[in-house]
Amino acid sequence: MFRPVYLDHNATTPLDPIVLEAMLPWLDSQHGNASSRHEYGRRARQAIDEARQKVAAAVNAHPTEVVFTSGGSEANNLFVKGAAASLKPGVIAASAIEHPCVLKPAAQLEKQGWQVRLLAVDTNGRVDAADFAEALRLKPRLLSVMLANNETGILQDVEALAAAAKSGGGWFHTDAVQALGKQAINFRSLNGVGVHAMTLSAHKASGPKGAAALVLDKRVDVQPLIAGGGHERGLRSGTENVPAIVGFGVAAELAALRVAELPVRLRGMQAKLEAGLVALGARVFAKDARRLPNTTYFAFDDIDGETLVGKLDREGFAVASGAACSSANPEPSHVLRAMGVAPEIARGAVRISLGAANTETEIEQFINALQATVGRLQGLTAIAV
Amino acid sequence: MFRPVYLDHNATTPLDPIVLEAMLPWLDSQHGNASSRHEYGRRARQAIDEARQKVAAAVNAHPTEVVFTSGGSEANNLFVKGAAASLKPGVIAASAIEHPCVLKPAAQLEKQGWQVRLLAVDTNGRVDAADFAEALRLKPRLLSVMLANNETGILQDVEALAAAAKSGGGWFHTDAVQALGKQAINFRSLNGVGVHAMTLSAHKASGPKGAAALVLDKRVDVQPLIAGGGHERGLRSGTENVPAIVGFGVAAELAALRVAELPVRLRGMQAKLEAGLVALGARVFAKDARRLPNTTYFAFDDIDGETLVGKLDREGFAVASGAACSSANPEPSHVLRAMGVAPEIARGAVRISLGAANTETEIEQFINALQATVGRLQGLTAIAV
Ligand SMILES: Cc1ncc(COP(=O)(O)O)c(C=O)c1O
Ligand SMILES: Cc1ncc(COP(=O)(O)O)c(C=O)c1O
Repeated sequence: MFRPVYLDHNATTPLDPIVLEAMLPWLDSQHGNASSRHEYGRRARQAIDEARQKVAAAVNAHPTEVVFTSGGSEANNLFVKGAAASLKPGVIAASAIEHPCVLKPAAQLEKQGWQVRLLAVDTNGRVDAADFAEALRLKPRLLSVMLANNETGILQDVEALAAAAKSGGGWFHTDAVQALGKQAINFRSLNGVGVHAMTLSAHKASGPKGAAALVLDKRVDVQPLIAGGGHERGLRSGTENVPAIVGFGVAAELAALRVAELPVRLRGMQAKLEAGLVALGARVFAKDARRLPNTTYFAFDDIDGETLVGKLDREGFAVASGAACSSANPEPSHVLRAMGVAPEIARGAVRISLGAANTETEIEQFINALQATVGRLQGLTAIAV
Repeated sequence: MFRPVYLDHNATTPLDPIVLEAMLPWLDSQHGNASSRHEYGRRARQAIDEARQKVAAAVNAHPTEVVFTSGGSEANNLFVKGAAASLKPGVIAASAIEHPCVLKPAAQLEKQGWQVRLLAVDTNGRVDAADFAEALRLKPRLLSVMLANNETGILQDVEALAAAAKSGGGWFHTDAVQALGKQAINFRSLNGVGVHAMTLSAHKASGPKGAAALVLDKRVDVQPLIAGGGHERGLRSGTENVPAIVGFGVAAELAALRVAELPVRLRGMQAKLEAGLVALGARVFAKDARRLPNTTYFAFDDIDGETLVGKLDREGFAVASGAACSSANPEPSHVLRAMGVAPEIARGAVRISLGAANTETEIEQFINALQATVGRLQGLTAIAV
């Protein structure tokens, strides 16, 4: 079967074979409901407890701080809406480049009297210090700034932002979905400077779709989004997805084990890729800013991103023209717009996100295919003009 | 490995091997994000489309009416909270024996000015006609009555209730989680008499944990519980759990294929089981009412349900002492209390729920083990007295 080179790991990652292996018994003979009080149930409960310990250990949190959810979007919504439901309406501050699953629930809160204050970012996509200081004067009750951006790979200095916000007394959340496995994450030290909640999602880090977590400081009072049987300390009801949670545990453990080595290798491939892109005349967004080691966001003037993605797909390379979840959206990226990129340039944006299985050879093949494709497209443009 | 006889299918079912087989490629090489615009993404999107068609066909709904969620609890919360968020606060009517994932979100609505009107049930656990008529005078904007109860297996005459409620103009929801695979479900005909939404959950019908659906009449305006990238027509954001959704599709297809035959076989085993129970002196709740063919809820006077479940577990039989998700709850079942069962009797409740893989021989073995266990426990009670 045709197997294109996969360069879209920020959209989702292949399941690590070790993770799949660990999940299989729970998809087969170990089918119990973790709430059942019999042998099958107890085994499932124990598997979930172990996964909780692994996820906690991977990000230096306490197991009781880990609230399992079905995905990163649910965890972000749980924080935003769940924490808001326990507070009097006020200001929620979120960076303008947050994922839609932070920005949309925040917008939903406006109906309940909340005010959304977007935090401006600079041309590199980093939260602007002056604007942040101004926002803090509004005493936001909730704040959300992501550790790493899914489109650009830009890293925020979340520790400094949380520290600055701390005296204001709001609850500070960070979306670490794109950071897991690509850099070390230490919830205890983040929590020490004033980060109260953090989102992780298994399928972005060689784990399965269907499991994620909100890591939550227990002082934060959160109302459940999904109420019912009282699972997850009453914060998230519903029969636990045992195989996915088991897989998440193993994936988190692997992520922590590999975080000393993998990012170095990714960084090497990223440098090679970006040198090739620049040589072809591409503009790489936020090129010199602190970014994830696997993410490169670029554009060619006069070449439409969607078109380029389609051509590369036919050449056997799977890349993205923006966040996968909004690829159906023809608007130019809200992330690039917040960075002040002109719409006609933003429309050219293409994202490469590397993973553990990618090789230097694949990078070379990709650059060659890109050169040929871009050449043809630019030729067409020249004729059209 | 020790493999007890599994008699707890209402808590969760083993995955059908055909379902697992269909899921495996999506846990392996077919790892794409269904929103991605490349080969991997398109394959995932197509797999989800096919699963949506299968689920819809299995319950005679239109594919565009199927909103995938992560579980039955999420689907019930999505209806209750999501529909409420689009309406002015008013009355929500729900039967007193609904699953907690209907009753708890309804209770959460009280903070927003809603009023919860519980519908009384008779001693057989069926919604009381006179009380229902009285509740309708309050013009409930939302109503929820389950097709089949998870503890007793009692079936409601949802068509008649919906028809009676229709002129009131409220949105009528039914939780069909325990009905799928155990009886034919026809959303089109339910919808015709005034049912506007219906919940299904894959793992209760030989499908995987992690996929479920709210089947929704498109006239119902529902706000998303999980907002973000705009998946599922904006009603449920988050990267789709492709393997689980694929598994749900196949499980739903199998459920529909087998629904002519399986319930007959289950009914036969149920009759044998209940004859045995009655011979041992057990009381079977709602024995002569219309019930699911797989569910038997019983109690022995003077024997604690939890204790009996524990003893049977050690004998190699996995049974439940009430709804799995509230087994951690020492209160006697809210379902039995609503049926007017005295607390001291309700405390003895034990549930057997059969599945496709159970055999007549297992029923005989179970009755033998139960006889011995009950004999010992009654002996102890006699001595203690
Ligand atoms: C930064 C970020 N946050 C949250 C999410 C949502 O996670 P999930 O797809 O698991 O719902 C994503 C991915 O879609 C993401 O990239
Ligand atoms: C009748 C009923 N509704 C809803 C649910 C919740 O479904 P899930 O466990 O998939 O969240 C269950 C099972 O727990 C149930 O029995």
